Amino acid sequence: MAIDPNASIEVTALCWVPRGAQGLVKDLRVRWALEEAGLDYRVRLVGAERPTGYVKDQPFNQVPCLRDDKVQIFESGAILQYIGEKAEALLPLDPQGKCRAIQWTYAAVSSVEPFVQFRSLLNVVFADQKWAEPAKPTFDHFARLRLQQLSDHLGDKQWLEGDRFTIGDLMMVTVLRIADRSGQLTDFPGLAAYVKRGEARAAFQRALGDQLAAFAANQPHTEGAAA
Amino acid sequence: MAIDPNASIEVTALCWVPRGAQGLVKDLRVRWALEEAGLDYRVRLVGAERPTGYVKDQPFNQVPCLRDDKVQIFESGAILQYIGEKAEALLPLDPQGKCRAIQWTYAAVSSVEPFVQFRSLLNVVFADQKWAEPAKPTFDHFARLRLQQLSDHLGDKQWLEGDRFTIGDLMMVTVLRIADRSGQLTDFPGLAAYVKRGEARAAFQRALGDQLAAFAANQPHTEGAAA
Repeated sequence: MAIDPNASIEVTALCWVPRGAQGLVKDLRVRWALEEAGLDYRVRLVGAERPTGYVKDQPFNQVPCLRDDKVQIFESGAILQYIGEKAEALLPLDPQGKCRAIQWTYAAVSSVEPFVQFRSLLNVVFADQKWAEPAKPTFDHFARLRLQQLSDHLGDKQWLEGDRFTIGDLMMVTVLRIADRSGQLTDFPGLAAYVKRGEARAAFQRALGDQLAAFAANQPHTEGAAA
Repeated sequence: MAIDPNASIEVTALCWVPRGAQGLVKDLRVRWALEEAGLDYRVRLVGAERPTGYVKDQPFNQVPCLRDDKVQIFESGAILQYIGEKAEALLPLDPQGKCRAIQWTYAAVSSVEPFVQFRSLLNVVFADQKWAEPAKPTFDHFARLRLQQLSDHLGDKQWLEGDRFTIGDLMMVTVLRIADRSGQLTDFPGLAAYVKRGEARAAFQRALGDQLAAFAANQPHTEGAAA
Protein backbone atom coordinates (compact mmCIF):
# COMPACT_ATOMS: atom_id res chain seq x y z
CA MET A 1 0.00 0.00 0.00
CA ALA A 2 2.88 2.27 -0.78
CA ILE A 3 5.15 3.09 -3.66
CA ASP A 4 8.24 0.91 -3.34
CA PRO A 5 10.93 0.88 -6.04
CA ASN A 6 11.54 -2.81 -5.28
CA ALA A 7 7.92 -3.94 -5.47
CA SER A 8 7.17 -6.73 -7.95
CA ILE A 9 4.19 -4.85 -9.43
CA GLU A 10 5.05 -2.08 -11.89
CA VAL A 11 2.48 0.48 -13.04
CA THR A 12 3.06 2.98 -15.83
CA ALA A 13 1.95 6.57 -15.32
CA LEU A 14 2.55 9.92 -16.98
CA CYS A 15 5.33 12.27 -15.85
CA TRP A 16 3.13 15.28 -16.19
CA VAL A 17 -0.16 16.50 -17.71
CA PRO A 18 -1.81 19.95 -17.78
CA ARG A 19 -3.76 21.04 -14.71
CA GLY A 20 -7.17 20.16 -16.25
CA ALA A 21 -6.22 16.49 -16.60
CA GLN A 22 -4.40 16.12 -13.28
CA GLY A 23 -6.25 13.70 -11.01
CA LEU A 24 -8.08 12.17 -13.98
CA VAL A 25 -5.30 10.17 -15.67
CA LYS A 26 -6.22 6.52 -15.64
CA ASP A 27 -3.26 5.18 -13.68
CA LEU A 28 -5.22 6.62 -10.72
CA ARG A 29 -7.64 3.69 -11.05
CA VAL A 30 -4.83 1.18 -10.68
CA ARG A 31 -3.07 3.06 -7.88
CA TRP A 32 -6.38 3.26 -6.00
CA ALA A 33 -7.10 -0.45 -6.44
CA LEU A 34 -3.60 -1.38 -5.26
CA GLU A 35 -4.04 0.82 -2.20
CA GLU A 36 -7.40 -0.79 -1.43
CA ALA A 37 -5.83 -4.22 -1.85
CA GLY A 38 -2.84 -3.34 0.33
CA LEU A 39 -0.32 -4.10 -2.40
CA ASP A 40 2.96 -2.24 -2.90
CA TYR A 41 3.91 -1.12 -6.38
CA ARG A 42 6.59 0.74 -8.25
CA VAL A 43 5.86 3.41 -10.85
CA ARG A 44 7.34 3.72 -14.32
CA LEU A 45 6.81 7.31 -15.42
CA VAL A 46 6.63 7.96 -19.17
CA GLY A 47 6.60 11.31 -20.94
CA ALA A 48 4.45 12.75 -23.71
CA GLU A 49 7.14 11.36 -26.00
CA ARG A 50 6.80 7.68 -25.11
CA PRO A 51 9.94 5.53 -24.74
CA THR A 52 11.00 3.47 -27.76
CA GLY A 53 9.04 0.24 -27.84
CA TYR A 54 6.32 1.46 -25.47
CA VAL A 55 3.71 0.70 -28.13
CA LYS A 56 4.54 -2.99 -27.65
CA ASP A 57 3.34 -2.68 -24.05
CA GLN A 58 0.36 -0.50 -24.93
CA PRO A 59 -0.78 -0.44 -28.59
CA PHE A 60 -2.73 2.79 -28.06
CA ASN A 61 0.27 4.54 -26.46
CA GLN A 62 -1.62 5.20 -23.25
CA VAL A 63 -1.24 4.53 -19.54
CA PRO A 64 -1.65 2.49 -17.41
CA CYS A 65 0.08 -0.81 -18.02
CA LEU A 66 0.75 -3.27 -15.22
CA ARG A 67 3.44 -5.91 -15.11
CA ASP A 68 4.62 -8.28 -12.41
CA ASP A 69 6.24 -11.71 -12.41
CA LYS A 70 3.10 -13.32 -13.90
CA VAL A 71 1.38 -10.94 -16.31
CA GLN A 72 1.85 -7.91 -18.52
CA ILE A 73 -1.42 -6.17 -19.30
CA PHE A 74 -3.03 -2.86 -20.21
CA GLU A 75 -6.60 -1.47 -19.99
CA SER A 76 -7.54 -0.29 -16.53
CA GLY A 77 -10.58 -2.59 -16.40
CA ALA A 78 -8.49 -5.72 -16.97
CA ILE A 79 -5.93 -4.50 -14.44
CA LEU A 80 -8.61 -3.84 -11.80
CA GLN A 81 -9.85 -7.39 -12.25
CA TYR A 82 -6.35 -8.78 -11.89
CA ILE A 83 -5.88 -6.84 -8.66
CA GLY A 84 -9.40 -7.79 -7.56
CA GLU A 85 -8.54 -11.48 -7.93
CA LYS A 86 -5.87 -10.90 -5.26
CA ALA A 87 -8.20 -9.07 -2.88
CA GLU A 88 -11.66 -10.24 -1.95
CA ALA A 89 -12.23 -6.77 -0.48
CA LEU A 90 -12.47 -5.52 -4.09
CA LEU A 91 -14.03 -8.49 -5.89
CA PRO A 92 -16.50 -10.86 -4.21
CA LEU A 93 -15.86 -14.60 -4.54
CA ASP A 94 -19.47 -15.70 -5.08
CA PRO A 95 -20.41 -15.95 -8.80
CA GLN A 96 -23.21 -13.38 -8.75
CA GLY A 97 -21.25 -10.84 -6.67
CA LYS A 98 -18.19 -11.28 -8.85
CA CYS A 99 -20.08 -10.99 -12.12
CA ARG A 100 -21.94 -7.90 -10.95
CA ALA A 101 -18.73 -6.15 -9.84
CA ILE A 102 -17.10 -6.93 -13.19
CA GLN A 103 -20.26 -5.85 -15.01
CA TRP A 104 -20.08 -2.39 -13.44
CA THR A 105 -16.50 -1.90 -14.61
CA TYR A 106 -17.71 -2.43 -18.18
CA ALA A 107 -20.75 -0.23 -17.60
CA ALA A 108 -18.45 2.53 -16.38
CA VAL A 109 -16.03 2.51 -19.33
CA SER A 110 -18.51 1.55 -22.05
CA SER A 111 -22.01 2.79 -21.12
CA VAL A 112 -21.10 5.96 -19.21
CA GLU A 113 -17.56 7.19 -19.89
CA PRO A 114 -17.80 7.73 -23.68
CA PHE A 115 -20.80 10.02 -23.25
CA VAL A 116 -19.48 12.14 -20.39
CA GLN A 117 -15.98 12.16 -21.89
CA PHE A 118 -17.09 13.47 -25.30
CA ARG A 119 -19.35 16.04 -23.61
CA SER A 120 -16.39 17.14 -21.52
CA LEU A 121 -14.11 17.38 -24.56
CA LEU A 122 -16.52 19.86 -26.18
CA ASN A 123 -15.56 22.31 -23.42
CA VAL A 124 -11.85 21.65 -23.66
CA VAL A 125 -10.05 19.93 -26.52
CA PHE A 126 -12.76 20.67 -29.12
CA ALA A 127 -13.72 24.10 -27.70
CA ASP A 128 -12.09 26.07 -30.52
CA GLN A 129 -13.91 24.15 -33.25
CA LYS A 130 -16.95 25.87 -34.67
CA TRP A 131 -19.11 22.74 -34.53
CA ALA A 132 -18.49 22.25 -30.80
CA GLU A 133 -21.09 24.74 -29.52
CA PRO A 134 -23.99 23.57 -31.74
CA ALA A 135 -23.13 19.94 -30.93
CA LYS A 136 -23.51 20.46 -27.19
CA PRO A 137 -27.29 19.90 -26.91
CA THR A 138 -26.99 16.48 -28.57
CA PHE A 139 -24.07 15.34 -26.44
CA ASP A 140 -25.76 16.84 -23.37
CA HIS A 141 -28.81 14.75 -24.11
CA PHE A 142 -26.92 11.47 -24.28
CA ALA A 143 -24.68 12.17 -21.30
CA ARG A 144 -27.61 13.28 -19.13
CA LEU A 145 -29.65 10.24 -20.13
CA ARG A 146 -26.94 7.87 -18.96
CA LEU A 147 -26.32 9.86 -15.78
CA GLN A 148 -30.05 9.86 -14.98
CA GLN A 149 -30.29 6.11 -15.55
CA LEU A 150 -27.28 5.51 -13.33
CA SER A 151 -28.67 7.85 -10.69
CA ASP A 152 -32.00 6.01 -10.77
CA HIS A 153 -30.22 2.70 -10.28
CA LEU A 154 -28.07 3.98 -7.42
CA GLY A 155 -31.02 5.51 -5.57
CA ASP A 156 -30.09 5.79 -1.91
CA LYS A 157 -27.71 2.85 -1.98
CA GLN A 158 -24.19 3.49 -0.74
CA TRP A 159 -22.55 1.61 -3.61
CA LEU A 160 -23.81 0.22 -6.92
CA GLU A 161 -24.69 -3.20 -5.49
CA GLY A 162 -25.62 -2.03 -1.98
CA ASP A 163 -23.32 -1.89 1.03
CA ARG A 164 -20.24 -3.38 -0.49
CA PHE A 165 -17.58 -1.36 -2.37
CA THR A 166 -16.09 -3.25 -5.35
CA ILE A 167 -13.91 -2.64 -8.41
CA GLY A 168 -17.19 -1.67 -10.12
CA ASP A 169 -17.59 1.31 -7.81
CA LEU A 170 -13.92 2.16 -8.08
CA MET A 171 -14.18 2.35 -11.85
CA MET A 172 -17.52 4.17 -11.86
CA VAL A 173 -16.33 6.83 -9.40
CA THR A 174 -13.29 7.59 -11.55
CA VAL A 175 -15.54 7.92 -14.60
CA LEU A 176 -18.00 10.17 -12.78
CA ARG A 177 -15.11 12.40 -11.66
CA ILE A 178 -14.69 13.32 -15.35
CA ALA A 179 -18.36 14.34 -15.42
CA ASP A 180 -18.05 16.13 -12.09
CA ARG A 181 -15.07 18.21 -13.16
CA SER A 182 -16.88 19.42 -16.27
CA GLY A 183 -20.02 20.37 -14.31
CA GLN A 184 -22.18 17.46 -15.50
CA LEU A 185 -23.21 16.31 -12.03
CA THR A 186 -24.87 19.58 -10.97
CA ASP A 187 -28.34 18.12 -11.50
CA PHE A 188 -27.42 14.72 -10.06
CA PRO A 189 -26.75 15.24 -6.34
CA GLY A 190 -26.99 11.51 -5.65
CA LEU A 191 -24.14 10.81 -8.07
CA ALA A 192 -22.13 13.75 -6.73
CA ALA A 193 -22.49 12.33 -3.20
CA TYR A 194 -21.49 8.88 -4.48
CA VAL A 195 -18.32 10.39 -5.97
CA LYS A 196 -17.57 12.09 -2.66
CA ARG A 197 -17.98 8.78 -0.81
CA GLY A 198 -15.43 7.22 -3.12
CA GLU A 199 -13.03 10.13 -2.85
CA ALA A 200 -13.28 10.04 0.96
CA ARG A 201 -11.71 6.58 1.13
CA ALA A 202 -8.18 6.61 2.53
CA ALA A 203 -6.94 4.46 -0.36
CA PHE A 204 -8.24 6.97 -2.90
CA GLN A 205 -6.59 9.84 -1.07
CA ARG A 206 -3.22 8.08 -1.05
CA ALA A 207 -3.52 7.19 -4.75
CA LEU A 208 -4.50 10.71 -5.76
CA GLY A 209 -1.74 12.22 -3.62
CA ASP A 210 0.86 10.00 -5.28
CA GLN A 211 -0.35 10.82 -8.79
CA LEU A 212 -0.32 14.55 -8.09
CA ALA A 213 3.08 14.36 -6.40
CA ALA A 214 4.60 12.96 -9.61
CA PHE A 215 3.11 15.82 -11.63
CA ALA A 216 4.43 18.39 -9.14
CA ALA A 217 7.89 16.84 -9.27
CA ASN A 218 7.96 16.86 -13.07
CA GLN A 219 6.31 20.21 -13.80
CA PRO A 220 7.80 21.74 -16.98
CA HIS A 221 9.65 25.02 -16.44
CA THR A 222 7.27 26.78 -18.85
CA GLU A 223 4.14 25.74 -16.91
CA GLY A 224 4.36 28.47 -14.28
CA ALA A 225 4.26 31.12 -16.98
CA ALA A 226 1.45 29.39 -18.91
CA ALA A 227 -0.80 28.76 -15.89
CA MET B 1 -25.23 -24.45 -29.40
CA ALA B 2 -28.82 -23.94 -30.34
CA ILE B 3 -31.79 -21.95 -29.22
CA ASP B 4 -33.79 -24.09 -26.83
CA PRO B 5 -36.83 -22.71 -24.98
CA ASN B 6 -35.96 -24.97 -22.04
CA ALA B 7 -32.30 -24.00 -21.74
CA SER B 8 -31.19 -22.67 -18.35
CA ILE B 9 -29.41 -19.68 -19.91
CA GLU B 10 -31.67 -16.79 -20.96
CA VAL B 11 -30.43 -13.96 -23.17
CA THR B 12 -32.40 -10.80 -23.91
CA ALA B 13 -32.51 -9.51 -27.46
CA LEU B 14 -34.55 -6.99 -29.45
CA CYS B 15 -37.66 -8.01 -31.40
CA TRP B 16 -36.76 -5.83 -34.30
CA VAL B 17 -34.47 -2.94 -35.33
CA PRO B 18 -34.18 -1.00 -38.62
CA ARG B 19 -32.10 -2.57 -41.39
CA GLY B 20 -29.01 -0.42 -40.65
CA ALA B 21 -28.70 -1.83 -37.14
CA GLN B 22 -29.53 -5.44 -37.96
CA GLY B 23 -26.53 -7.68 -37.32
CA LEU B 24 -24.96 -5.08 -35.03
CA VAL B 25 -27.18 -5.35 -31.94
CA LYS B 26 -25.07 -6.45 -29.01
CA ASP B 27 -26.90 -9.66 -28.13
CA LEU B 28 -24.98 -10.98 -31.17
CA ARG B 29 -21.84 -10.98 -29.01
CA VAL B 30 -23.48 -13.21 -26.44
CA ARG B 31 -25.14 -15.51 -28.97
CA TRP B 32 -21.76 -15.90 -30.72
CA ALA B 33 -19.94 -16.72 -27.48
CA LEU B 34 -22.58 -19.26 -26.49
CA GLU B 35 -22.29 -20.90 -29.90
CA GLU B 36 -18.49 -21.03 -29.59
CA ALA B 37 -18.86 -22.53 -26.11
CA GLY B 38 -21.42 -25.08 -27.25
CA LEU B 39 -24.06 -23.89 -24.80
CA ASP B 40 -27.79 -23.86 -25.46
CA TYR B 41 -29.78 -20.77 -24.61
CA ARG B 42 -33.28 -19.38 -24.77
CA VAL B 43 -34.07 -15.88 -26.00
CA ARG B 44 -36.27 -13.29 -24.34
CA LEU B 45 -37.25 -10.79 -27.02
CA VAL B 46 -38.10 -7.26 -25.87
CA GLY B 47 -39.59 -4.45 -27.94
CA ALA B 48 -38.69 -0.78 -28.32
CA GLU B 49 -41.17 -0.27 -25.51
CA ARG B 50 -39.41 -2.31 -22.81
CA PRO B 51 -41.47 -4.54 -20.48
CA THR B 52 -42.38 -3.09 -17.08
CA GLY B 53 -39.49 -3.58 -14.69
CA TYR B 54 -36.92 -4.22 -17.42
CA VAL B 55 -34.84 -1.34 -16.08
CA LYS B 56 -34.23 -3.43 -12.96
CA ASP B 57 -32.48 -6.00 -15.15
CA GLN B 58 -30.68 -3.40 -17.26
CA PRO B 59 -30.43 0.15 -15.84
CA PHE B 60 -29.64 1.60 -19.29
CA ASN B 61 -32.63 -0.13 -20.89
CA GLN B 62 -30.45 -1.99 -23.36
CA VAL B 63 -29.77 -5.55 -24.44
CA PRO B 64 -28.26 -8.02 -23.75
CA CYS B 65 -28.85 -9.36 -20.26
CA LEU B 66 -28.03 -12.93 -19.30
CA ARG B 67 -29.56 -14.95 -16.52
CA ASP B 68 -29.27 -18.57 -15.48
CA ASP B 69 -29.58 -20.44 -12.19
CA LYS B 70 -26.47 -18.71 -10.79
CA VAL B 71 -26.22 -15.14 -12.07
CA GLN B 72 -28.15 -12.25 -13.54
CA ILE B 73 -25.91 -9.77 -15.38
CA PHE B 74 -25.77 -7.19 -18.14
CA GLU B 75 -22.91 -5.63 -20.19
CA SER B 76 -21.74 -7.83 -23.02
CA GLY B 77 -18.14 -7.78 -21.73
CA ALA B 78 -19.10 -9.20 -18.35
CA ILE B 79 -21.32 -11.77 -20.03
CA LEU B 80 -18.54 -12.87 -22.40
CA GLN B 81 -16.29 -13.43 -19.40
CA TYR B 82 -18.94 -15.47 -17.63
CA ILE B 83 -19.34 -17.65 -20.70
CA GLY B 84 -15.56 -17.76 -21.13
CA GLU B 85 -15.17 -19.15 -17.62
CA LYS B 86 -17.25 -22.11 -18.79
CA ALA B 87 -15.24 -22.68 -21.97
CA GLU B 88 -11.47 -22.73 -22.12
CA ALA B 89 -11.82 -22.49 -25.91
CA LEU B 90 -12.80 -18.84 -25.36
CA LEU B 91 -10.73 -17.89 -22.31
CA PRO B 92 -7.31 -19.38 -21.58
CA LEU B 93 -6.68 -20.74 -18.08
CA ASP B 94 -3.11 -19.46 -17.64
CA PRO B 95 -2.96 -16.05 -15.90
CA GLN B 96 -1.27 -14.16 -18.71
CA GLY B 97 -3.46 -15.63 -21.45
CA LYS B 98 -6.60 -15.00 -19.41
CA CYS B 99 -5.67 -11.41 -18.53
CA ARG B 100 -4.77 -10.63 -22.13
CA ALA B 101 -8.07 -11.98 -23.47
CA ILE B 102 -10.00 -9.96 -20.90
CA GLN B 103 -7.87 -6.92 -21.65
CA TRP B 104 -8.87 -7.01 -25.31
CA THR B 105 -12.57 -7.04 -24.44
CA TYR B 106 -12.04 -3.76 -22.57
CA ALA B 107 -9.88 -2.38 -25.37
CA ALA B 108 -12.68 -3.16 -27.83
CA VAL B 109 -15.51 -1.46 -25.93
CA SER B 110 -13.50 1.35 -24.37
CA SER B 111 -10.51 2.21 -26.60
CA VAL B 112 -12.01 1.47 -30.03
CA GLU B 113 -15.82 1.32 -30.02
CA PRO B 114 -16.59 4.87 -28.76
CA PHE B 115 -14.53 6.39 -31.56
CA VAL B 116 -15.86 4.29 -34.43
CA GLN B 117 -19.39 4.40 -33.01
CA PHE B 118 -19.54 8.21 -32.78
CA ARG B 119 -18.00 8.49 -36.26
CA SER B 120 -20.63 6.11 -37.56
CA LEU B 121 -23.46 8.04 -35.87
CA LEU B 122 -22.43 11.19 -37.77
CA ASN B 123 -23.56 9.41 -40.95
CA VAL B 124 -26.80 8.10 -39.49
CA VAL B 125 -28.46 9.31 -36.28
CA PHE B 126 -26.78 12.73 -36.30
CA ALA B 127 -26.77 13.14 -40.10
CA ASP B 128 -29.54 15.76 -40.15
CA GLN B 129 -27.79 18.00 -37.62
CA LYS B 130 -25.91 20.92 -39.11
CA TRP B 131 -22.82 20.35 -36.92
CA ALA B 132 -22.41 16.75 -38.09
CA GLU B 133 -20.62 17.48 -41.39
CA PRO B 134 -18.05 19.94 -39.96
CA ALA B 135 -17.42 17.57 -37.04
CA LYS B 136 -16.45 14.69 -39.31
CA PRO B 137 -12.74 15.52 -39.75
CA THR B 138 -12.19 15.55 -35.98
CA PHE B 139 -14.04 12.28 -35.38
CA ASP B 140 -12.34 10.79 -38.43
CA HIS B 141 -8.99 11.68 -36.95
CA PHE B 142 -9.64 9.92 -33.63
CA ALA B 143 -11.30 6.86 -35.15
CA ARG B 144 -8.54 6.43 -37.73
CA LEU B 145 -5.85 6.82 -35.09
CA ARG B 146 -7.28 3.97 -33.02
CA LEU B 147 -7.83 1.78 -36.07
CA GLN B 148 -4.26 2.39 -37.24
CA GLN B 149 -2.88 1.51 -33.80
CA LEU B 150 -4.96 -1.63 -33.69
CA SER B 151 -3.93 -2.54 -37.23
CA ASP B 152 -0.27 -2.04 -36.30
CA HIS B 153 -0.67 -4.32 -33.31
CA LEU B 154 -2.46 -7.02 -35.28
CA GLY B 155 0.10 -7.02 -38.08
CA ASP B 156 -0.05 -10.37 -39.83
CA LYS B 157 -1.23 -12.26 -36.77
CA GLN B 158 -4.42 -14.28 -37.14
CA TRP B 159 -5.90 -13.10 -33.83
CA LEU B 160 -4.97 -10.34 -31.37
CA GLU B 161 -2.68 -12.57 -29.31
CA GLY B 162 -1.51 -14.81 -32.14
CA ASP B 163 -3.00 -18.13 -33.16
CA ARG B 164 -5.66 -18.46 -30.52
CA PHE B 165 -9.17 -16.98 -30.82
CA THR B 166 -10.52 -15.65 -27.49
CA ILE B 167 -13.38 -13.52 -26.13
CA GLY B 168 -11.08 -10.56 -26.85
CA ASP B 169 -11.23 -11.29 -30.57
CA LEU B 170 -14.94 -11.99 -30.42
CA MET B 171 -15.57 -8.58 -28.88
CA MET B 172 -13.13 -6.75 -31.15
CA VAL B 173 -14.60 -8.26 -34.33
CA THR B 174 -18.11 -7.15 -33.34
CA VAL B 175 -16.81 -3.63 -32.68
CA LEU B 176 -14.94 -3.51 -35.97
CA ARG B 177 -18.10 -4.61 -37.79
CA ILE B 178 -19.59 -1.22 -36.79
CA ALA B 179 -16.59 0.47 -38.39
CA ASP B 180 -16.76 -1.81 -41.42
CA ARG B 181 -20.45 -1.13 -42.08
CA SER B 182 -19.84 2.64 -42.07
CA GLY B 183 -16.88 2.39 -44.45
CA GLN B 184 -14.17 3.05 -41.87
CA LEU B 185 -12.08 -0.03 -42.72
CA THR B 186 -11.47 0.87 -46.36
CA ASP B 187 -7.90 1.95 -45.59
CA PHE B 188 -7.28 -0.90 -43.15
CA PRO B 189 -7.28 -4.12 -45.18
CA GLY B 190 -5.64 -6.04 -42.34
CA LEU B 191 -8.51 -5.21 -40.02
CA ALA B 192 -11.08 -5.93 -42.74
CA ALA B 193 -9.52 -9.37 -43.25
CA TYR B 194 -9.54 -9.93 -39.46
CA VAL B 195 -13.27 -9.16 -39.40
CA LYS B 196 -13.82 -11.61 -42.24
CA ARG B 197 -11.93 -14.33 -40.34
CA GLY B 198 -14.23 -13.79 -37.39
CA GLU B 199 -17.36 -13.74 -39.52
CA ALA B 200 -16.29 -16.95 -41.25
CA ARG B 201 -16.51 -18.95 -38.03
CA ALA B 202 -19.46 -21.34 -37.95
CA ALA B 203 -20.47 -20.12 -34.49
CA PHE B 204 -20.67 -16.54 -35.75
CA GLN B 205 -22.79 -17.58 -38.72
CA ARG B 206 -25.26 -19.41 -36.49
CA ALA B 207 -25.47 -16.47 -34.07
CA LEU B 208 -25.99 -13.94 -36.83
CA GLY B 209 -28.58 -16.13 -38.54
CA ASP B 210 -30.55 -16.44 -35.32
CA GLN B 211 -30.48 -12.70 -34.64
CA LEU B 212 -31.62 -11.90 -38.18
CA ALA B 213 -34.32 -14.59 -38.07
CA ALA B 214 -35.91 -12.87 -35.05
CA PHE B 215 -35.95 -9.54 -36.89
CA ALA B 216 -37.51 -11.15 -39.96
CA ALA B 217 -40.18 -12.82 -37.83
CA ASN B 218 -41.04 -9.57 -36.07
CA GLN B 219 -40.86 -7.12 -38.95
CA PRO B 220 -43.42 -4.34 -38.49
CA HIS B 221 -46.14 -4.21 -41.14
CA THR B 222 -45.08 -0.66 -42.05
CA GLU B 223 -41.47 -1.62 -42.75
CA GLY B 224 -42.06 -3.00 -46.23
CA ALA B 225 -43.50 0.31 -47.33
CA ALA B 226 -40.76 2.31 -45.64
CA ALA B 227 -37.82 0.25 -46.94
